[in-house]
Amino acid sequence: MHSWIDGQPATAVNLHNRGLAYGDGLFETIAVHSGRPSLLELHLERLALGCQRLAIEADFPLIRDELTRYASQLGDGVAKLILTRGDSLRGYAPAAGSPARRIVQGSPLPAYPAANAEQGVRLFACQTRLAEQPLLAGLKHLNRLEQVLARAEWQDAEHVEGLMRDTQGRLIEGVYSNLFLVRDGVLLTADLSRCGVAGVMRAALLQQASVLGIPFEVRDLELADLEQADEVFVCNSVYGIWPVRECPAHTLDWPPGPLTRKLQAVARTLLDT
Amino acid sequence: MHSWIDGQPATAVNLHNRGLAYGDGLFETIAVHSGRPSLLELHLERLALGCQRLAIEADFPLIRDELTRYASQLGDGVAKLILTRGDSLRGYAPAAGSPARRIVQGSPLPAYPAANAEQGVRLFACQTRLAEQPLLAGLKHLNRLEQVLARAEWQDAEHVEGLMRDTQGRLIEGVYSNLFLVRDGVLLTADLSRCGVAGVMRAALLQQASVLGIPFEVRDLELADLEQADEVFVCNSVYGIWPVRECPAHTLDWPPGPLTRKLQAVARTLLDT
Repeated sequence: MHSWIDGQPATAVNLHNRGLAYGDGLFETIAVHSGRPSLLELHLERLALGCQRLAIEADFPLIRDELTRYASQLGDGVAKLILTRGDSLRGYAPAAGSPARRIVQGSPLPAYPAANAEQGVRLFACQTRLAEQPLLAGLKHLNRLEQVLARAEWQDAEHVEGLMRDTQGRLIEGVYSNLFLVRDGVLLTADLSRCGVAGVMRAALLQQASVLGIPFEVRDLELADLEQADEVFVCNSVYGIWPVRECPAHTLDWPPGPLTRKLQAVARTLLDT
Repeated sequence: MHSWIDGQPATAVNLHNRGLAYGDGLFETIAVHSGRPSLLELHLERLALGCQRLAIEADFPLIRDELTRYASQLGDGVAKLILTRGDSLRGYAPAAGSPARRIVQGSPLPAYPAANAEQGVRLFACQTRLAEQPLLAGLKHLNRLEQVLARAEWQDAEHVEGLMRDTQGRLIEGVYSNLFLVRDGVLLTADLSRCGVAGVMRAALLQQASVLGIPFEVRDLELADLEQADEVFVCNSVYGIWPVRECPAHTLDWPPGPLTRKLQAVARTLLDT
């Protein structure tokens, strides 16, 4: 399907776009099923938080409307919204009056092997560490070189995701997922106030944990927490949940456990409705 | 003057360019005087280092040729080269066989007030801190949100540059310049192995200091070093050197000193030849 820029079909973006020049913008990757954007409210919430922290002015009713219309034409697939601060000729200072630019791109749903969700995935232990930058932590902004470097660390198909730690060694997330551990029935996920992307599926699962009375903690996680975990899984807003069955670099493995399976069903429902 | 993509006139770039998607690329901002790109060899050296560290394959003879031809048509101005890892549909993993993409843009030489070079500039003390990421430190890559946030901290024309420190409080650089101090005849500039951009003018000045027998140290700099400095200046490869005459937030001021004036003349010569 055609991409749109500011609601109009387009294949190319102005060379002076600040997204290209500085990564000055945000993005959202949204699953679309039967013409409906999944978890749209949470995507818009995170985008709004990003706009607030980066001081990007955007028309949210228009964005919502555009994503809804785009999804209905896409049918099934992934809609990616890139929101940049607009264009400017040169220099870090934003040009006055240059409106935020909305780019929407569509692609088919990724053809992940069914085994990822059923038997679980292997985690590669990335050497690339996440820098601590509280001003940008949690946001899905366009400065993603750390993820590019981390993803380039492995080429084999045996590893499906990579475990990323921060420069202090804390466990943070996957390269394109968030990480959850289960220990003694308690759901654990990393505090993302110093680095990391606060995923929409992560937020949805924490909401559901509250609703379902599943105890959870959002806190710093160390390697010891991984070693002591009963269950491990990764999640994002496209594939839902994959159990993690092995992290060979740390000689650790886990059977897909009951809480993982329960939340996997929850995630599937969240994405489909 | 028209921009070029891969040597051809263009005004827009493919929406799937990884520079836009992830800031997956590098750039160089090159002064052009009388049709010649200033400090071209140092720009190409830094670019090559960036390509090596990000594993971007680029055709350097072609890049050199393109920049030389572009500069000769531009005459006087600034040529900006953006080199991205190419295009890919979705996902952090680079698409196999997608060549690096070369974007060259031209703009007029900035009309900076003569007072910047003559009387010196005021430094704003930025609250935005630079995160420590040794894997990216020194490179002029496209992930520049920290600079965007820092530059947005002041709007008044009184402050011409901003002083950026890292998360530990060390002095690192200006928002679009490198920082030098002079103490007891010794030139000091920050070690950039954890963060910061290793500017081409900084490299040229360190080379010249060696040639001219000016003692220098590249090391961690603290606020105390700024307080004890006899002279302070900022530099980049477009404007050369500006003395720093004041940093009001720290109630510090300096007269433009003899070593600053000497190197300012050196920088002018470097840019003009």
